[in-house]
Parts: sequence; structure tokens; C-alpha cells
Amino acid sequence: MVKVVTDRDLQDLSLTAIAIEAVERAFREKAAGMLVSPPRHCVAMGDAGDLVFTVGGVTGGAQPVAGFRAYTTFNGERDEQVVALWNPSSGALIGLVTGARLGALRTGAIGGVAIRHMARDDARIVGVIGSGEQAKTQLEAAAAVRPIRHALVYSRNEANRIRFADEMGRRLGISVRPVETSRQAVTESDIVICATSSTLPVLEASWLKPGTHVNTVGPKFVGAHEIAVEVAAAARTIATDSPEQMLAYARPFFLTDTPDMRRIRDLCLLVAENRPVRRQEDITLFCSTGLAGTEVLVAEAILQRCASGIEIER
Amino acid sequence: MVKVVTDRDLQDLSLTAIAIEAVERAFREKAAGMLVSPPRHCVAMGDAGDLVFTVGGVTGGAQPVAGFRAYTTFNGERDEQVVALWNPSSGALIGLVTGARLGALRTGAIGGVAIRHMARDDARIVGVIGSGEQAKTQLEAAAAVRPIRHALVYSRNEANRIRFADEMGRRLGISVRPVETSRQAVTESDIVICATSSTLPVLEASWLKPGTHVNTVGPKFVGAHEIAVEVAAAARTIATDSPEQMLAYARPFFLTDTPDMRRIRDLCLLVAENRPVRRQEDITLFCSTGLAGTEVLVAEAILQRCASGIEIER
Repeated sequence: MVKVVTDRDLQDLSLTAIAIEAVERAFREKAAGMLVSPPRHCVAMGDAGDLVFTVGGVTGGAQPVAGFRAYTTFNGERDEQVVALWNPSSGALIGLVTGARLGALRTGAIGGVAIRHMARDDARIVGVIGSGEQAKTQLEAAAAVRPIRHALVYSRNEANRIRFADEMGRRLGISVRPVETSRQAVTESDIVICATSSTLPVLEASWLKPGTHVNTVGPKFVGAHEIAVEVAAAARTIATDSPEQMLAYARPFFLTDTPDMRRIRDLCLLVAENRPVRRQEDITLFCSTGLAGTEVLVAEAILQRCASGIEIER
Repeated sequence: MVKVVTDRDLQDLSLTAIAIEAVERAFREKAAGMLVSPPRHCVAMGDAGDLVFTVGGVTGGAQPVAGFRAYTTFNGERDEQVVALWNPSSGALIGLVTGARLGALRTGAIGGVAIRHMARDDARIVGVIGSGEQAKTQLEAAAAVRPIRHALVYSRNEANRIRFADEMGRRLGISVRPVETSRQAVTESDIVICATSSTLPVLEASWLKPGTHVNTVGPKFVGAHEIAVEVAAAARTIATDSPEQMLAYARPFFLTDTPDMRRIRDLCLLVAENRPVRRQEDITLFCSTGLAGTEVLVAEAILQRCASGIEIER
């Protein structure tokens, strides 16, 4: 039987912790040279947009798995992705996941692992810039790895930030307050999540208090980046989940030709070292690029644990 | 709802004709410059083997569709593929197909279109070399486009050729006879299908009678090819379904550095011309490479017509 799960099966908050442990495993496997995670592969489908494949897995060891996530950049209103997993020893298809939730869960979990290894242990306040699905799963992941009590959310659209605060406050059982400027979301926060599609900076370095961890998932290209270049200069440690992907984008990374480009560390090494990378007052910066292979390990862990979904006969 | 079909849903012989019409459409779209069909993309998964993607579709016109087939070269006994289709206008996932049957149906249908445009109208006898799944779907496709009365099958393994003859005779309602040499399968045949994994020639040019169409789906690389180079020299017309794929293989095509390499025509142009490419006594040769995008159009046509399968909620 092949298990198939959809977005409807992936709503439970308990899946966040499962996703974070799966991504932590991916980073340990990467540090050990066991993770297959090539840069993503884009195929232009005429004027309609691209089909994009992130392929990866772990082929050695006791728990081999291989697969991919496919997503589209079509202009339509839907974002319907497909994740497929195989057991590379037998060739058997293990399962399929459709929809956008798994990708968002996994990107959130990458941020969660970065927070676990780069943010203050006692981080209690999170500032969130952005109010989309990715902002939600980033905040869920932060709350899963740190004792978060309070979040502040800024989004250009007032209705969106109010809705985000209401929904996430109830979902996480913490206080979430909408604020009227991005600066208000930042100045008191121990962790700042930037999850926008903005190509103009929404975060300035001067707003950050000492000890803040900045976690960014939005655009980070030269000429189109959601955080100011000075944020990197202010950070004692800068890490990314995939230096390979960072260098493989069609557009250069936003720190190209700055002294900070050379300081960027591979998060997998911080995970493997597993010791504090920071002094309490240090600012740290994580630049998420979406390490390939992580969605495969997250899907595998979730397919094992998810009670719902359907089984199809071969 | 997203429709999911598996091998169990794709056994009916009536699907062969549907697949052939879908592939014929793919060739017409290709000739019109509307088919997206880049060479396949392989990702090595450590020592386990490769994950291979053939991506494609038609993004303009009244019936846009985009998607891919993913298959593996893992060493395990299973061949469990995934085909996924999107409507590129809305971004909606249309359906998923799992298993190996769709790929075999589509490769058979490519051969069927080649037979329709390259074999004698009155072809009645088919010689089949090989007895695997691909040999079966090639023969099914031949019988769908020509008035086939009789088939001769050769396979090195006697039990396999007897089983093939028994099964396919019943399935197609024609006489199918196992023979003891590949030559016996060839000398009287109007159409010769080579569907082996042999890297040594199983077909010699001197065995072919005038007017025969040769249709090959197995290896065709320099130093590893299932038909003799002289078969190409004997052919008045040589065509392939994807010159792009033929040139994109890691290993050179078996006719490289022969005068015949320059004579190879794109099957899509024969389809678009739709007039006889042969005199009755001509030998013709089709070299199948597996045009990308065809699986997407075949899957789309089959998902529309297939009565079984399941629907999953988004």
C-alpha cells in the first residue's frame, strides 16, 4: 500500500515537533556527508511559470529514503505541491503528500532548528514580519523550541495582521499582538522572523536589541532583499541551511561582494557541533534557502506518525 | 478533488488507443512549437541509483497541462513511478498516477504513432524481440494502428517467450507464436519490434525483407546497441521521437559518426506532414528515446477516461 496524505491531514500542531526532529536529522546527515541535497531544478513551462524540483534523501544507513518535492510558480491562485518518497533499497514507493502544508511545515522546521542552535535559550518574545502561511509555521517552530510567551506581528495589511494575531494566539496559547510598524515588532524581540515576499528591506540593523536572533525566509538577492545588508554586518554569527543552494540561485545572494559573505556558516555544522555559538548579547542571523532533502525526511517522519490519510493499493 | 490511479486501473486494452491519440497530439504540439519537452533530468542518490524526471506539457491553447514522470533506477525489485499533472492556468493539481504501467503504455504509444506514420498500411505480421512489459505494450500499440493478424516472439528465455505468446495471443485475439531465434521472428515480418535490454545487436540488417518497419526501444549507444548499425544504413527513412534527448544522453547515440546520423528525422515532422514517408518496398527505422511530455498528455487523457481510481480531497 502507498499512503497518500493531503493538507487536511497536516493541520495538527503536534506535527511541528516531528518536522523539527526530522530536519535536525537531515542536518546531522548532511554534516556526516550522508544527505543528498543538490540545488533545486527548475523547468520553464512556456509562459505559464516553472515546475521546480527539490530532490534529496539519505541513501545509506539504517533508514534510507529518497524522494522529491515538486512545486510550481504558475500564476493561478492554487499552490498544490507533490512530495513523493521511495525506499531506495527496495524501489518501493512509500507515500505521497499533496498540497502546500508540508513545504511550509518543513521550511518552518528549518527555521526552528536554526532557532534551537542560534537563539538565546531564554528567548521569550518573537517579532514576526509577514502574516502568510510561512510566517505562521515559522512562529509555530519558534514556539516549539523556545519558551515563547509573546509575539508581535507586523504586516502591511492591517486586516491580515489582526487575523494572524487572533489565529496564532489561539493556536499556540500565547499572546500575539498586531503592531503598526515593523520596527515595533522588532525592538523588544529576542527572535525576529522575516517571512515576507518584500524585495525592499523590512528590517534595519539599528532596530535590533543585543542578543536578538534574526531568522529570514524571504528574498535575499542583490537588489531584492527583505532585510538590510547591515543586519548581516551586525551579526556575530551568520548561517544558512544550504550554501550550495545559496550559490546556485540564478541571482547573486544579497551579501555577495560584502565581507560578510565569507563568514556564512553551514547550519549543519552548528547542529553537529551542538554547542553554544553565541554569547548572550550577540546578534545572530539565519538565512533560510530551503535545503533540499529536508522535505523528504519530514514527509517520511510525518507519514509514519500521521493517523489520517488514505492507503492506495499498488 | 485530485484523482489518483494506479497500475490496477490501467490494465484495460482500450487505454492503448487513448494513449496513442494523446501521443499523436503531443507530436502535433511539438511540431507547432507548443510542447515543452526538455531532456530528462537525473539526480544520483548516492550508491542507490538515480531519481529521473521527465518533465513537460503544453502550456498554451485550449487544453493546457503540465507535469512530469519520476522514475528510479534503484536496484530493488520494484519499479514504482509517479506521474503528476497540473493545470498551469489555475495551478491546480489534476491528478497522480503511480506504478510502471503508465510509462509502458506511453512508450508503447510512441511506438504506435511511429508505426502509424512509418509502417506499411497493410502490415499484418509483427516480429517481437523481447518479452518484457515494454514488448507487450509495443505489440498492443502495433495492433491498434495496423491490421495485425500474426506475431512471432523471440526471447532468450524459452519460458518467457511461451508465456508472452500465450498471454498476448489471448489479450489481442491474434495468433502469437514463440520462435527459437531472433532471425525467425524477423524474416517474414512487416514490422519488427526490438524491446530488449541487450547491448549486443539482436537484429541484423540482412534478415529484413523489403518493406519492413523496425521499431526499437532498447539501448542505442555507441558500443551498446540492440540493433546492428547496418539496419540504419538499410533504412530509407530513420526517425526518432526526440532528437533533443538523443543528443542529451551521457553516452553518444549509436549512429554517431556514421552518415546515417544526419538523416535522422524528428517524428513530429512526419506526424505533422501526415503523408506517406515510404514506398512499399522501403525499410524504415524508428529509434524511440522517450519524448518528455508525452507521459503528461497520456496521463491527462487517461485520467479523463479511466472509470476507476480514487479521488482524494485537497
